[in-house]
Amino acid sequence: MVLKDSEREMVAYHEAGHAIINLQKKLLPPLYRVSIIPRGQALGATTLLPTEDQNLQSRNFFLEELVVLMGGRAAEKVFYGNTSNGAAGDLDMARKIAYNMVHQWGMGEKLYYQPEEHDAEIEINRLLEQADQQALAIIEAQKKSTQKLAEALLARETLSREEILEMFQKAAMAEGEFDIELSSFPV
Amino acid sequence: MVLKDSEREMVAYHEAGHAIINLQKKLLPPLYRVSIIPRGQALGATTLLPTEDQNLQSRNFFLEELVVLMGGRAAEKVFYGNTSNGAAGDLDMARKIAYNMVHQWGMGEKLYYQPEEHDAEIEINRLLEQADQQALAIIEAQKKSTQKLAEALLARETLSREEILEMFQKAAMAEGEFDIELSSFPV
Amino acid sequence: MVLKDSEREMVAYHEAGHAIINLQKKLLPPLYRVSIIPRGQALGATTLLPTEDQNLQSRNFFLEELVVLMGGRAAEKVFYGNTSNGAAGDLDMARKIAYNMVHQWGMGEKLYYQPEEHDAEIEINRLLEQADQQALAIIEAQKKSTQKLAEALLARETLSREEILEMFQKAAMAEGEFDIELSSFPV
Amino acid sequence: MVLKDSEREMVAYHEAGHAIINLQKKLLPPLYRVSIIPRGQALGATTLLPTEDQNLQSRNFFLEELVVLMGGRAAEKVFYGNTSNGAAGDLDMARKIAYNMVHQWGMGEKLYYQPEEHDAEIEINRLLEQADQQALAIIEAQKKSTQKLAEALLARETLSREEILEMFQKAAMAEGEFDIELSSFPV
Amino acid sequence: MVLKDSEREMVAYHEAGHAIINLQKKLLPPLYRVSIIPRGQALGATTLLPTEDQNLQSRNFFLEELVVLMGGRAAEKVFYGNTSNGAAGDLDMARKIAYNMVHQWGMGEKLYYQPEEHDAEIEINRLLEQADQQALAIIEAQKKSTQKLAEALLARETLSREEILEMFQKAAMAEGEFDIELSSFPV
Amino acid sequence: MVLKDSEREMVAYHEAGHAIINLQKKLLPPLYRVSIIPRGQALGATTLLPTEDQNLQSRNFFLEELVVLMGGRAAEKVFYGNTSNGAAGDLDMARKIAYNMVHQWGMGEKLYYQPEEHDAEIEINRLLEQADQQALAIIEAQKKSTQKLAEALLARETLSREEILEMFQKAAMAEGEFDIELSSFPV
Repeated sequence: MVLKDSEREMVAYHEAGHAIINLQKKLLPPLYRVSIIPRGQALGATTLLPTEDQNLQSRNFFLEELVVLMGGRAAEKVFYGNTSNGAAGDLDMARKIAYNMVHQWGMGEKLYYQPEEHDAEIEINRLLEQADQQALAIIEAQKKSTQKLAEALLARETLSREEILEMFQKAAMAEGEFDIELSSFPV
Repeated sequence: MVLKDSEREMVAYHEAGHAIINLQKKLLPPLYRVSIIPRGQALGATTLLPTEDQNLQSRNFFLEELVVLMGGRAAEKVFYGNTSNGAAGDLDMARKIAYNMVHQWGMGEKLYYQPEEHDAEIEINRLLEQADQQALAIIEAQKKSTQKLAEALLARETLSREEILEMFQKAAMAEGEFDIELSSFPV
Repeated sequence: MVLKDSEREMVAYHEAGHAIINLQKKLLPPLYRVSIIPRGQALGATTLLPTEDQNLQSRNFFLEELVVLMGGRAAEKVFYGNTSNGAAGDLDMARKIAYNMVHQWGMGEKLYYQPEEHDAEIEINRLLEQADQQALAIIEAQKKSTQKLAEALLARETLSREEILEMFQKAAMAEGEFDIELSSFPV
Repeated sequence: MVLKDSEREMVAYHEAGHAIINLQKKLLPPLYRVSIIPRGQALGATTLLPTEDQNLQSRNFFLEELVVLMGGRAAEKVFYGNTSNGAAGDLDMARKIAYNMVHQWGMGEKLYYQPEEHDAEIEINRLLEQADQQALAIIEAQKKSTQKLAEALLARETLSREEILEMFQKAAMAEGEFDIELSSFPV
Repeated sequence: MVLKDSEREMVAYHEAGHAIINLQKKLLPPLYRVSIIPRGQALGATTLLPTEDQNLQSRNFFLEELVVLMGGRAAEKVFYGNTSNGAAGDLDMARKIAYNMVHQWGMGEKLYYQPEEHDAEIEINRLLEQADQQALAIIEAQKKSTQKLAEALLARETLSREEILEMFQKAAMAEGEFDIELSSFPV
Repeated sequence: MVLKDSEREMVAYHEAGHAIINLQKKLLPPLYRVSIIPRGQALGATTLLPTEDQNLQSRNFFLEELVVLMGGRAAEKVFYGNTSNGAAGDLDMARKIAYNMVHQWGMGEKLYYQPEEHDAEIEINRLLEQADQQALAIIEAQKKSTQKLAEALLARETLSREEILEMFQKAAMAEGEFDIELSSFPV
């Protein structure tokens, strides 16, 4: 699969969006690598650090996961004022998580007997909407970081966790005005 | 398949409608050829310039695509005060795009969990209606161009991109009052 | 299949109803023959003039077709104050046309995404009801013509287009008060 | 199948109910025989005179048919204050006729596109209810005739059309006060 | 299947509930035997006197049958203030009878065309609720008889019709204050 | 299956929640063993004393069972302010019991004919919600006992009924202020 330049740029911003939000979220596994080299169906990838097998996950964990999934869309909106069909896979995964939170794991505001119960759908939609809005707020607050990361991805294609952290630390020291909250970074 | 004269004329206006709207839309691939020679099931065809493979498309791209799809119907309405069953294929494709925009690509005003959610249907219908109205407005504003293109199609059956552009440029110079906005043409 | 006399009479009025309405409608192919000789499942037949193959049809064409389909029922109502189960096939075809007008061909007042959308059903029913009422109005206004045609069918079983036109022209000259508008006849 | 005496009596009243109503209805084929000898699934039978094949039936014909079908239930209500499960077959046939009247034959107050349309169901139910009430009114008005016919059936098991008519004519002469309207009898 | 003592006692009261209500109902076949010896799936059984085959049953017959079916639950409520899952089979049979009364046999307040019609469901539920309440009222009014019968069942496991009637007649004579209405007993 | 320490701790609190509620409930079989050794799909287990086969269960029995099933979730909420996806199996079983109570065993406030009846769903949800709230109230009232049991589980992995009872009795004597109501313990 060969991407046009304009597509490659959009992928870089999309992946940067996922990565920047992951860096702000403490329950999720830490960021491992971000790449805009297409592989299979995927035009890019944000990979999290492999951790020991996890058997139990809390409601808050899944809420963070939803926000990270919306991070690609959020970056597209902030930098292009528009979203692309590249978020279809993110949305699909987010829908499944929100469905399971409400129907399988009892993490909605109420317990529902019937999967098709109207109130439950409203809860699922609210989970999706809230994650979407939270992602947008984070990317807007950290527009500079996101752009810096996207530009680095366009230049180097793949960045490791260490390279990303180093880049932001240098930037913070050099500029004294960087918008990412470094203290929140998992080390 | 042999078309009657009255049918051939309606096909010419129908295809001219698609073409005139494509000429106004900047995100879509540029017009390549318009023809009223029947081929297979199709009574005519408006073909866009083959471009490099495109993997990512924006919401605005699809909005333009919807308007072009409605362009055939719009020309029928403007010139015949009536629509024909020749728009069935255009409507079918438009419905699929609008469905995917809302349900697969997160391009509706909200994110929807359930494909059959009532609000989502209303959004899909609104996308279709808005494209239909925008197409009608464009064709009404450029009635002269559309008629000129339809008549050229009836005379010559197939027109290339170059022939169409040349025809409109000559007309603009000769008449000084042509209604198409030439600056908007992709060259 | 052998019809009783009372059935044969009702078939004559039913077919006369179709024929009289066809004679008033200009977009449809002209009337070719009317017959009350049963053939296969059909107890009678109103046949239109074979024309060249038609690939495109307008909304107005289908509206006329719906009214002609209701013409048999209308004649039964006007002459018997009652309808019979002989209109089942007419109604079935009318339902299919109205469905396609609204859902396949974009000829409803709005474009509908979902075939089962409630408003669309209302439009389909309105198309059927309006055709039914228009058919009734025509047959009531031309009761004499319809009766004359039905009686001729009972006497001669089959009437060609020429015989029907001649009959009405003679009647118009002889009586000076015939209710059919001859100027609207296709020649 | 062996019927208990109490069952045999109820069957006699049930069949008498069908027969008495048939005798009042002029569009239906005339009564041919009434019997309370069980045959197959049926505990009794009211048979109409075989007529020539009928291809067309009017709305009024079906309305009469519905009332006769309700006649068995009506006789049970009038004479036992109660209905039995012996009317299941009658109800089943009545439901099918009412469904076809509304959905296949256009005999409802409106034409319906969708078989499951709510208003159509209400029409079907109203057809059934009206037939039920009309049957009850007839049997109550002719309670004496119905009882006389039921008693004759219990005594003789099967009555031909001639025997039934003779019985009622004698009764009318002898008593001068019989409640059946003889003039309405088909001869 | 081995029952615990507490279960065996509850079965005795449950079967006594069915039996006491059957003794009050005149249209049903008379009681033949009551037993708390488990057989197959059943933990106990109330058997009615085998009668000649019955082909026709009235609405009142089915109403009585519903009340008897609710008798087991009613006894559990009166003596334990609670119901058990032992009534699942009774409820299942009651639902089927109520469904058929309304949909197959025309024994509801109205005739219904569509099995899923909302009003019909309400009627079915009302039949079930009324039977449930009537059963409760009977068992509460005859609490002493029910308890006496349950205790006899616990002592002797199976009681024949004769033993039950004899037991109640002796009790009535000895105590002069027994609450069952003996005159209503089928002999 | 290897659990991380944080997961193992959460499993200990989850199982302690089930156990503490079981200790308060008198109709259920008594507690037999609590363990946080993963086995198959289960991360831990609260096992009840094997009793003789039970064929009949009361409504109150099932209500208690629902509360115990919610006990794991309740402990997670009280100690983590959050629930995990480890309650999926508990919720699934609770939904099945509540469904059967209302639809199979007639233990709802009303009898329902149609499994999909809206009021019935509301009853099922209410059963689930009430059990959830009762479980939360019990765990909050006995937070100390629950914590003590969870800590013992983390230290010893499996506790028998005797060990649990001994632990609480010692605690009650030593501290004179323990919050569990010992008199309610089955011995």
